[in-house]
Amino acid sequence: MSESVSTPTRSYVLTLSCPNQPGIVATISRALFELGGDIAGAQQFDERESRVFFMRIVFSLPTGGAELETLHDVLSGIAARLDMKWALRESARPTRTVIMVSRFDHCLVDLLYRWRIGELAIEPVAIISNHPRETFAHISLEGIPFHYLPVSAATRAEQEARIEHVVRDTGAELVVLARYMQILSDQMSVWLAGRCINIHHSFLPGFKGARPYHQAFARGVKLIGATAHFVTPDLDEGPIIEQDVERITHADSPDDLIRKGRDIERRVLARAVRYFTERRVIPNGHKTIVFSP
Amino acid sequence: MSESVSTPTRSYVLTLSCPNQPGIVATISRALFELGGDIAGAQQFDERESRVFFMRIVFSLPTGGAELETLHDVLSGIAARLDMKWALRESARPTRTVIMVSRFDHCLVDLLYRWRIGELAIEPVAIISNHPRETFAHISLEGIPFHYLPVSAATRAEQEARIEHVVRDTGAELVVLARYMQILSDQMSVWLAGRCINIHHSFLPGFKGARPYHQAFARGVKLIGATAHFVTPDLDEGPIIEQDVERITHADSPDDLIRKGRDIERRVLARAVRYFTERRVIPNGHKTIVFSP
Amino acid sequence: MSESVSTPTRSYVLTLSCPNQPGIVATISRALFELGGDIAGAQQFDERESRVFFMRIVFSLPTGGAELETLHDVLSGIAARLDMKWALRESARPTRTVIMVSRFDHCLVDLLYRWRIGELAIEPVAIISNHPRETFAHISLEGIPFHYLPVSAATRAEQEARIEHVVRDTGAELVVLARYMQILSDQMSVWLAGRCINIHHSFLPGFKGARPYHQAFARGVKLIGATAHFVTPDLDEGPIIEQDVERITHADSPDDLIRKGRDIERRVLARAVRYFTERRVIPNGHKTIVFSP
Amino acid sequence: MSESVSTPTRSYVLTLSCPNQPGIVATISRALFELGGDIAGAQQFDERESRVFFMRIVFSLPTGGAELETLHDVLSGIAARLDMKWALRESARPTRTVIMVSRFDHCLVDLLYRWRIGELAIEPVAIISNHPRETFAHISLEGIPFHYLPVSAATRAEQEARIEHVVRDTGAELVVLARYMQILSDQMSVWLAGRCINIHHSFLPGFKGARPYHQAFARGVKLIGATAHFVTPDLDEGPIIEQDVERITHADSPDDLIRKGRDIERRVLARAVRYFTERRVIPNGHKTIVFSP
Repeated sequence: MSESVSTPTRSYVLTLSCPNQPGIVATISRALFELGGDIAGAQQFDERESRVFFMRIVFSLPTGGAELETLHDVLSGIAARLDMKWALRESARPTRTVIMVSRFDHCLVDLLYRWRIGELAIEPVAIISNHPRETFAHISLEGIPFHYLPVSAATRAEQEARIEHVVRDTGAELVVLARYMQILSDQMSVWLAGRCINIHHSFLPGFKGARPYHQAFARGVKLIGATAHFVTPDLDEGPIIEQDVERITHADSPDDLIRKGRDIERRVLARAVRYFTERRVIPNGHKTIVFSP
Repeated sequence: MSESVSTPTRSYVLTLSCPNQPGIVATISRALFELGGDIAGAQQFDERESRVFFMRIVFSLPTGGAELETLHDVLSGIAARLDMKWALRESARPTRTVIMVSRFDHCLVDLLYRWRIGELAIEPVAIISNHPRETFAHISLEGIPFHYLPVSAATRAEQEARIEHVVRDTGAELVVLARYMQILSDQMSVWLAGRCINIHHSFLPGFKGARPYHQAFARGVKLIGATAHFVTPDLDEGPIIEQDVERITHADSPDDLIRKGRDIERRVLARAVRYFTERRVIPNGHKTIVFSP
Repeated sequence: MSESVSTPTRSYVLTLSCPNQPGIVATISRALFELGGDIAGAQQFDERESRVFFMRIVFSLPTGGAELETLHDVLSGIAARLDMKWALRESARPTRTVIMVSRFDHCLVDLLYRWRIGELAIEPVAIISNHPRETFAHISLEGIPFHYLPVSAATRAEQEARIEHVVRDTGAELVVLARYMQILSDQMSVWLAGRCINIHHSFLPGFKGARPYHQAFARGVKLIGATAHFVTPDLDEGPIIEQDVERITHADSPDDLIRKGRDIERRVLARAVRYFTERRVIPNGHKTIVFSP
Repeated sequence: MSESVSTPTRSYVLTLSCPNQPGIVATISRALFELGGDIAGAQQFDERESRVFFMRIVFSLPTGGAELETLHDVLSGIAARLDMKWALRESARPTRTVIMVSRFDHCLVDLLYRWRIGELAIEPVAIISNHPRETFAHISLEGIPFHYLPVSAATRAEQEARIEHVVRDTGAELVVLARYMQILSDQMSVWLAGRCINIHHSFLPGFKGARPYHQAFARGVKLIGATAHFVTPDLDEGPIIEQDVERITHADSPDDLIRKGRDIERRVLARAVRYFTERRVIPNGHKTIVFSP
């Protein structure tokens, strides 16, 4: 676990899941140790119902030590033995991200700001909107390619084909629906499973559907919230990644709720994207494991 | 507004609502001033949709000054003129309260403790349970009459008649369902309208119905909550008085949720009861006005 | 209190304070009523120790009704009688604001964004920085005059003279220190008393002085916070307007604290500026009254 | 990691710290695996400054498998090799706890309630107070021995000797100062190092010393808090375990702060005690590691 002061190292995140069985931690930690790896942190979760074991390990390898290829071979061998799904990722590499947005730009502005000052390890490879570039005239897009892809019921299939093209073309690893107010088709949702995060402007499962702030106002709740979740064909039912709330009163109008909501939305979405880039989120059926920072 | 050091005074809370119209504040404050009243605090709310005006005024009258009867006459006159509903209450008088409880006693214990140390201005006039006194063997009921009123589908009407008898007999102004796990009949709910507070162990409107913590676990939410609301025939749809939440993670079991929930439930219920005793809560259709402390 | 649908109105905020005495509310509300005024909301606070009474009234006057001049005359008369300080302001008029900033731009960016989308009723009349325009190359300043006023110990007096000139010249009503990392002179602080808000990156009174996040890390606290306060010569001791916190753990480095702190700072500062523009904040010695929205 | 359905197991918590070095996780997990152990959860922390590695492992051993003695031998061997401090504890065994209290009983009542309903894995072996049993007349102490140990400057040494006697005699593992308003001597604090938790009624490091709520009122802060910390000779400077806050306003009197404070105090103290009983807290110099649940 020591972090050598003199030897340069490369840091990795390994995430894995497999049927629960004795010896998993021993096997993995032994393998990493033998390759010269140094574990900086590890978290695990033992899902009682499904009897699935989840783990996230941050470790470093000395530069000039074991080849990445060797590590892959070793992990593949273990995976075969333990019936394990796994993913390995260099910590320093930012997550290639497509941001999709409609008219409300607060989440877009927030994500770009956090990216610019180095707070969020994304690499924005494209911005897609169903509104034209002029809608975002005040925003410096910093050279990120902007795709204006308007959509109607008649053109949805064609538009989604173009979205898919952008995602493939850019090698995007993550698609963020940053207040993108169009519903993706089932086909698109399935294709993006586990790599598309939406910010829903309500505290799900309360106030599904349209105009959640108006619903919250009508019901007279005393707290409103926002929910970041993975997109699935089942609208508003995707695995929840992060949620938060703010207090409101009888005196708050729907407009006040929308204003307060903007703050919750942007911080909830930023946290969810951050967790994703740090490989803290593992989908688990219709729920998620989120290994806290 | 001055609080005379030498003259003893009596403090009152006046709550009122009427169709919005010019001059309400001027009329009321003038009347109180002429009777020697001294306004210590006032809050108001102008409901835009229904065009109803709500107000809560805390004021004091010098002892030996205007008779309470005179004040009543003056307010009655104003009420007739402004089409105003109003209620006047001496601040020092505790609220006569019936507490109803089933097997889980954390809210009962909490309310009794807050009452005992003088934090909550209630006067517990009866405790009603569908479980026998032995269920609460560890709790010092401090001489409060305990009514064991078991209930089944067949005996509900009869049991509720006995509840009604207790409420009438004790002159109770408030009935608190402190985790009372039986559903009141529509008739009973209507009879107790605006004076019966329930603690629901979920963040309404999410997770209505039975076993909300298990529902929350199954859905994989990241925050759980509790809701204090007025009881209405429309189960889980009564006007919300107070809500709060706590953070949970994927690692929390339903039992953990129940444990964390107890803390939220007792503080949300205690706040709602406190607001009621201080006449801060005014029902407004299926919502509430809560004038914050 | 009714808001006529047909007659256009102008909305005002009246704030006042005076020695506590009977009849203040009656006197003010009567005067507004007689001029055709319609009170939309009012809040008051009776300071027990100093026996000072504070009030904030939002009301509207029908266009073509009483002249503003008449209103001023009436209020001046009342003020003389009650020994009352007061301020009257048209609600629709944005607050002319100078924003001062050093190298960290998150609060600046946040304030400008909230202003641009109409969330914050400020009119940014100048941005002053001790860093050159290039430092903010990524930020669209939307035509707001930018003043580069570098400063050293030797040039402080001269620099502050130029700041004062900008404030006077622009008719600024509010100066916001949006992470401006220079200490204002006592003279400047006194001149800006009650109209200069600073965001302090700690939960005062803990961690006064330099590098509060490093202090918090060293002490091992479990929550960090930020404080918006009026600037006074007594550094870190100005009247507090708003505070908030976020949870941290042993695993958070000083850099993590700085990152989490940015979110708290920008929302605490935005709230404080909002309260100021809505005339909800009244200084009260070394404390503040904040009439909650 | 599998949890056998058929074989009965005993669950343990192992906590350890040692100089950071490669192979720690591999060594420990291997050893547990070879003894038939099944790791249910593990958390670790790599302290950068001191280069100390901390770990908490929850695991089970099959009944009838490896003897506890063998496990001890194995761990002792590893400890010698890695220069490791460690502690092993059976999960099911409650923590023998002495509760000390003065006049304010809200934390005592809360701890006893949580213990009674099985929420808190303590075994209260004694209650010590400098106030007589009558002070707690309303509280059912459930047969827990009560020690009335009044104290004055002159008798402190003698009183502490008696406290020490109770702690030794009962085999207490934890002493909780549940609003015990006397200062322990340096000698006593050192003797109880790492096993004595105090609840301080302020958000440390703000408002050290006496009457923190009155200090908070005087300063005009907008949030108040409470702090649970290990007791050290350095008053108010002990390692912090848990903190929380609640919002207050200008209208809250010192009495309101005290009332709101009671809620924070009891939930902060209950959390800290819970973390201790679950061996989640590891002192780290003047700070703590708290492995979150």
